[in-house]
Amino acid sequence: MIMSRIEAARDETTGNLLDRLLAGLPAETVLTGPDVTASYANDMASFCESGAPAVVVLPRTVEQVQHVMRTATDLRVPVVPQGARTGLSGAANASDGCIVLSLTKMDRILEISPVDRIAVVEPGVVNATLSRAVGEHGLYYPPDPSSWEMCTIGGNIGTASGGLCCVKYGVTAEYVLGLDVVLADGRLMSTGRRTAKGVAGYDLTRLFVGSEGSLGIVVRAVLALRPQPPQQLVLAAEFPSASAACDAVCRIMEGGHVPSLLELMDRTTVKAVNGIAHMGLPETTEALLLAAFDTPEPGADLAAIGALCEAAGATQVVPADDPAESELLLQARRLSLTALEAVKGTTMIDDVCVPRSRLGELFAGVERIAEKQGLTIGVVAHAGDGNTHPTVCFDATDPDESRRARESFDEIMALGLELGGTITGEHGVGILKKEWLAREIGPVGLEMQRAVKAVFDPLGILNPGKLF
Amino acid sequence: MIMSRIEAARDETTGNLLDRLLAGLPAETVLTGPDVTASYANDMASFCESGAPAVVVLPRTVEQVQHVMRTATDLRVPVVPQGARTGLSGAANASDGCIVLSLTKMDRILEISPVDRIAVVEPGVVNATLSRAVGEHGLYYPPDPSSWEMCTIGGNIGTASGGLCCVKYGVTAEYVLGLDVVLADGRLMSTGRRTAKGVAGYDLTRLFVGSEGSLGIVVRAVLALRPQPPQQLVLAAEFPSASAACDAVCRIMEGGHVPSLLELMDRTTVKAVNGIAHMGLPETTEALLLAAFDTPEPGADLAAIGALCEAAGATQVVPADDPAESELLLQARRLSLTALEAVKGTTMIDDVCVPRSRLGELFAGVERIAEKQGLTIGVVAHAGDGNTHPTVCFDATDPDESRRARESFDEIMALGLELGGTITGEHGVGILKKEWLAREIGPVGLEMQRAVKAVFDPLGILNPGKLF
Repeated sequence: MIMSRIEAARDETTGNLLDRLLAGLPAETVLTGPDVTASYANDMASFCESGAPAVVVLPRTVEQVQHVMRTATDLRVPVVPQGARTGLSGAANASDGCIVLSLTKMDRILEISPVDRIAVVEPGVVNATLSRAVGEHGLYYPPDPSSWEMCTIGGNIGTASGGLCCVKYGVTAEYVLGLDVVLADGRLMSTGRRTAKGVAGYDLTRLFVGSEGSLGIVVRAVLALRPQPPQQLVLAAEFPSASAACDAVCRIMEGGHVPSLLELMDRTTVKAVNGIAHMGLPETTEALLLAAFDTPEPGADLAAIGALCEAAGATQVVPADDPAESELLLQARRLSLTALEAVKGTTMIDDVCVPRSRLGELFAGVERIAEKQGLTIGVVAHAGDGNTHPTVCFDATDPDESRRARESFDEIMALGLELGGTITGEHGVGILKKEWLAREIGPVGLEMQRAVKAVFDPLGILNPGKLF
Repeated sequence: MIMSRIEAARDETTGNLLDRLLAGLPAETVLTGPDVTASYANDMASFCESGAPAVVVLPRTVEQVQHVMRTATDLRVPVVPQGARTGLSGAANASDGCIVLSLTKMDRILEISPVDRIAVVEPGVVNATLSRAVGEHGLYYPPDPSSWEMCTIGGNIGTASGGLCCVKYGVTAEYVLGLDVVLADGRLMSTGRRTAKGVAGYDLTRLFVGSEGSLGIVVRAVLALRPQPPQQLVLAAEFPSASAACDAVCRIMEGGHVPSLLELMDRTTVKAVNGIAHMGLPETTEALLLAAFDTPEPGADLAAIGALCEAAGATQVVPADDPAESELLLQARRLSLTALEAVKGTTMIDDVCVPRSRLGELFAGVERIAEKQGLTIGVVAHAGDGNTHPTVCFDATDPDESRRARESFDEIMALGLELGGTITGEHGVGILKKEWLAREIGPVGLEMQRAVKAVFDPLGILNPGKLF
């Protein structure tokens, strides 16, 4: 009896919300069936709670986004912005009764300028679509998260995504020059610029990058582009220990080299890859380092770092002769996460970034944690950045193993902080790492961050429960 | 009688302030003589009002800065942070009765790590000192404002400074990874990281970069470094018109080239340089373009862009054969502002940045403005970035000429905005461009920026009257 009264009240609320939304939106942009809305409840993070959205809206225009936010403000309804939901921290997970605001249908590339080296895009443009489109003009949009064939630029901006290229080209944040943002109350604000430089006022553009939809809704972005570099050439080096491979990474970076990719896979990951594919990796490999250069003379650069790898103890160094061979060498890296998933059925991917001088200690520490917890933890790393993805493999149907997985995940973050690192190099905080954010930035930082949030979202309707 | 009562009251206030400051500061860090304090009243901007500081404090430690800010908060006294006061927008100008907080004595380089490619510094380190120190480790700190031999890293961070290298290496903002900041109430906050990547929470680091001392006092910075590039080789190209030179700039950037410097001087500037030095520049030069490459094969790169210059109508193209010849070619550029100052005794240097595809229109527009106002305006530009410094030459003792100078300065900013640009590419807003900031970012942006300011400075004691 009580339940049905609550249900009725809730329906009335939802009904009112729907009426208000539909007053300013075409019917086809508003999805309400519980099966449909439930399919928008999650991103790709494990272990993060999610609720049942009241409604999913897929706007096509800035005005429609403004209408949604005005409605949400009037009715005090939470709004959860979403891109392709490939995130790994639960930042796009729905909360009960929320409006899911999916920006995937605002997917136009509005402008590409080779002279100004910029692109102007809507948030729903898929990363790979943009990359290919600018490629036709001889241009390059570097940020390349693993999910680049699916993830959207809006999502990349929300999480400040990284990728393999960051060691040379930096992260999403470096490529966002200006934004149009719909604020919580529906007003439109422009930040930044479309020029190469600009210092007029506070850098609100950067404040929005990585804010996980908690400050406003990005509806348009001006992105910086680079000239397309030459195709990269890859080298693979096998090491007798992760420590020796980390030493090679330090020598390479200390030597002033600028690789376009510098990735490291530990023994566990190599074994896992061998378990699902025949890549020709020796079972004795304790660590595999992949380096690439997209310079005019990549062969010479590879030879130089090959020598550094050997000095650090590499047992085999294999430079590719051409792009096709390079692709082959990268396949083991590409298969890593799939291979680690196959180990136990479920994985928790951590994202700890440490100063690269501490990389060896991170690898050693993760090995200790895996041993102590009796778990398989494979480490794949954007080694040149010190950004590691220790990946805990476990059986999610086994409660004790799940508990140990969760524990080791936390222990890895504690280790990262202890080594002067951060709890997240590129995946973001979302729901998954809220408590850890507080530990990393401390009480004063947290107070200031919350106060900044309150400036843009005084009613707390923008992606509540994320970050803090 | 009334005056002397006011004076006495003011003395009492100042006396109380001094007592409170001296309770936590060594006597030698506190300067009070009116002659001495007056010498800290200004930065290098023309046309900006300044007041008489009550006291100048030169702290040596973070704790001393915290004591100053606690005192200022308790007594509601405005604080004006200063570096070397080489700024060009009045952002470091004192206000009446303020505490000038000069960070120049906190000038230690705390750490340089070649493996992590970072430096950790106090705010008073001079840019050139840091550049030389990291150079000894084979490292490179790119931001190079013209004042680099004098200006401090803290000042560079406050104004988000640029320089000649930005066309390839970006501005100060790209090199600030983390900050320690003393807040208005004296609490210490750390932002950012010392890792290559990191997305834990809002990017408050970037919010502080370019905030002109209005949000907090930077007392320590973690800076990103790059490997030292090869020495650059320079090419000079003479054009029959500014428009042809701007066309060459567009062709170079559209062609995918990445020069380490791409500077443009107009006819007025070339003539002014000829007026004070014998650089061998023909009096018929209508525009002089300087380009440089610090690539492994700069000769080949210079040849490629030399051809583009010729295609755009260059009448002469002179590539340097070695670094010494390169330096010679750059001297004309280095003399530009001194030469323009010599024209009429006083200059107002504007700092408009436009999309580089609009550079030709900017040069043409400035010429129209100069003609209309009957003034000499020379334009020196970081052409590769679209960042121009139209420099109005005038006789400051002539009220009518001063008025016309001021008018043309404003007309240039209006032109910049009209061309899709910004009112400041690298010099900042300060006092000089407050009204123009409001015009550029609009009422919603302004409201949000003010609200962010209020979060960090609820009492309005941090560099009041700047930016807004």
